[in-house]
Amino acid sequence: MTKQQLFEHIKRKKSFLCVGLDTDITKIPEHLLELDDPIYTFNQQVIDATAPYCVAYKPNLAFYESLGVKGWEAFEKTVAYIKQRYPEQFIIADAKRGDIGNTSDMYARAFFDRAKVDAVTVAPYMGEDSVSPFLTREGKWVILLALTSNKGAFDFQLMRDAEAGEQLFEKVLKTSMKWGNSENTMYVIGATKAEMLAQVREIVPNHFLLVPGVGAQGGSLEEVCKYGMNSTCGLLVNSSRGIIYADNSANFAVAVREEAQKLQKEMEEMLKKHLGL
Amino acid sequence: MTKQQLFEHIKRKKSFLCVGLDTDITKIPEHLLELDDPIYTFNQQVIDATAPYCVAYKPNLAFYESLGVKGWEAFEKTVAYIKQRYPEQFIIADAKRGDIGNTSDMYARAFFDRAKVDAVTVAPYMGEDSVSPFLTREGKWVILLALTSNKGAFDFQLMRDAEAGEQLFEKVLKTSMKWGNSENTMYVIGATKAEMLAQVREIVPNHFLLVPGVGAQGGSLEEVCKYGMNSTCGLLVNSSRGIIYADNSANFAVAVREEAQKLQKEMEEMLKKHLGL
Repeated sequence: MTKQQLFEHIKRKKSFLCVGLDTDITKIPEHLLELDDPIYTFNQQVIDATAPYCVAYKPNLAFYESLGVKGWEAFEKTVAYIKQRYPEQFIIADAKRGDIGNTSDMYARAFFDRAKVDAVTVAPYMGEDSVSPFLTREGKWVILLALTSNKGAFDFQLMRDAEAGEQLFEKVLKTSMKWGNSENTMYVIGATKAEMLAQVREIVPNHFLLVPGVGAQGGSLEEVCKYGMNSTCGLLVNSSRGIIYADNSANFAVAVREEAQKLQKEMEEMLKKHLGL
Repeated sequence: MTKQQLFEHIKRKKSFLCVGLDTDITKIPEHLLELDDPIYTFNQQVIDATAPYCVAYKPNLAFYESLGVKGWEAFEKTVAYIKQRYPEQFIIADAKRGDIGNTSDMYARAFFDRAKVDAVTVAPYMGEDSVSPFLTREGKWVILLALTSNKGAFDFQLMRDAEAGEQLFEKVLKTSMKWGNSENTMYVIGATKAEMLAQVREIVPNHFLLVPGVGAQGGSLEEVCKYGMNSTCGLLVNSSRGIIYADNSANFAVAVREEAQKLQKEMEEMLKKHLGL
């Protein structure tokens, strides 16, 4: 998917919502547990309920891997379901991968050629040859960790370079801009550090940012838009737990839909306010 | 497995070799491709051929994930095979994971509770809460990336902190020492940067180091031992491609055994020279 196609989708839906499929077998409604593939069935219902209100889905690989082969199967089936029923949706494998070149190339095959997602989240620690194998396929994206939403982000990401004076996450942004461009690279910037989005936008004015941390982790949508939105929106704001675990009854899909719609409405306001859409 | 148990195993085998199971379907001997699970069969033969000469196995998850469900199945079967036939072997899931706390906890479940490996490689970029969920199980280990063997290591890992004057990989070592200890944490230090092992040993004298990069990537075993060995050996030196793809014929296991044995002999020399074992 191109950046322009993503922006067109955002304008059509009046939404830049990404629904995080962090599907935990211990948290889904009990009646699903009797089924053959509860994770997949839960995901199908969440996807059907939220598709009108979002532009992206983000299955979190850890939750699938914790179930071994069965979980990996549910992941592949979920991606295939979205692609078949909602081909306009942008699918992100939230996998935080990254290894030496020949190994990152294998991860790229796993996610792009096999599972056929649009984007993979990648950790930058190992540098260029760990990231560039994800940048070789047209229409496919790397989403590189820059400034994450968690407490541990303060351990290393804000370290200041003695020579250049920039912080590690800024160095990651500046350095990786030479590996890819705003048509194949996005960055993870946590909503819990919204005021720092202004600093991020000075370095990457045109890139899309994947913003987790709104909702369960306490980030504010208004602040994120104030500092982070650009002329092509430039934001995919993720919500996982706040949407998918909105209700635990047999009727859970109703509450899931309502939560997604509520966020979509707020996003519609933001798109009007900042971009006049 | 405890550090002492690992050292006892090293003394018994006179080896600190870790065999990397980077099993690539396009590189294994052709006659295996007709079988039901070529990856698993190849691994079984490699394991049987090398077990007398090594103390650890390191399946590289990327290679399994590139085959989807079938690959994940081969990974789980491989781990189960090692555990059943060679329970003294230390098994490392080379997965380079790391995410916010609740997600890293899911990865810990995937690898420790389900696949039942002894250790997982983890990337430090997201800080403490991305690493500590891997440190909650007795006898299980985190192997944290510090100074990797690839060219991209120079992009960020050597950045110098304006305040503390230390480099990023040193900060990772020092900071993470507060999260765990030498009984549950190891570090990845690439053999291609052997002279920097002295610098590493000043910070972590007692920790085990997982050292990739000997062989295909050009690192020297002698240099690694000179700068990196400590009183409990403190090294697991990995070789992947150099061993497992030593030969491509139906008789490949013979060459695989020879390559492993050759490295074991060199390691025996090093253990004698540096530790008098």
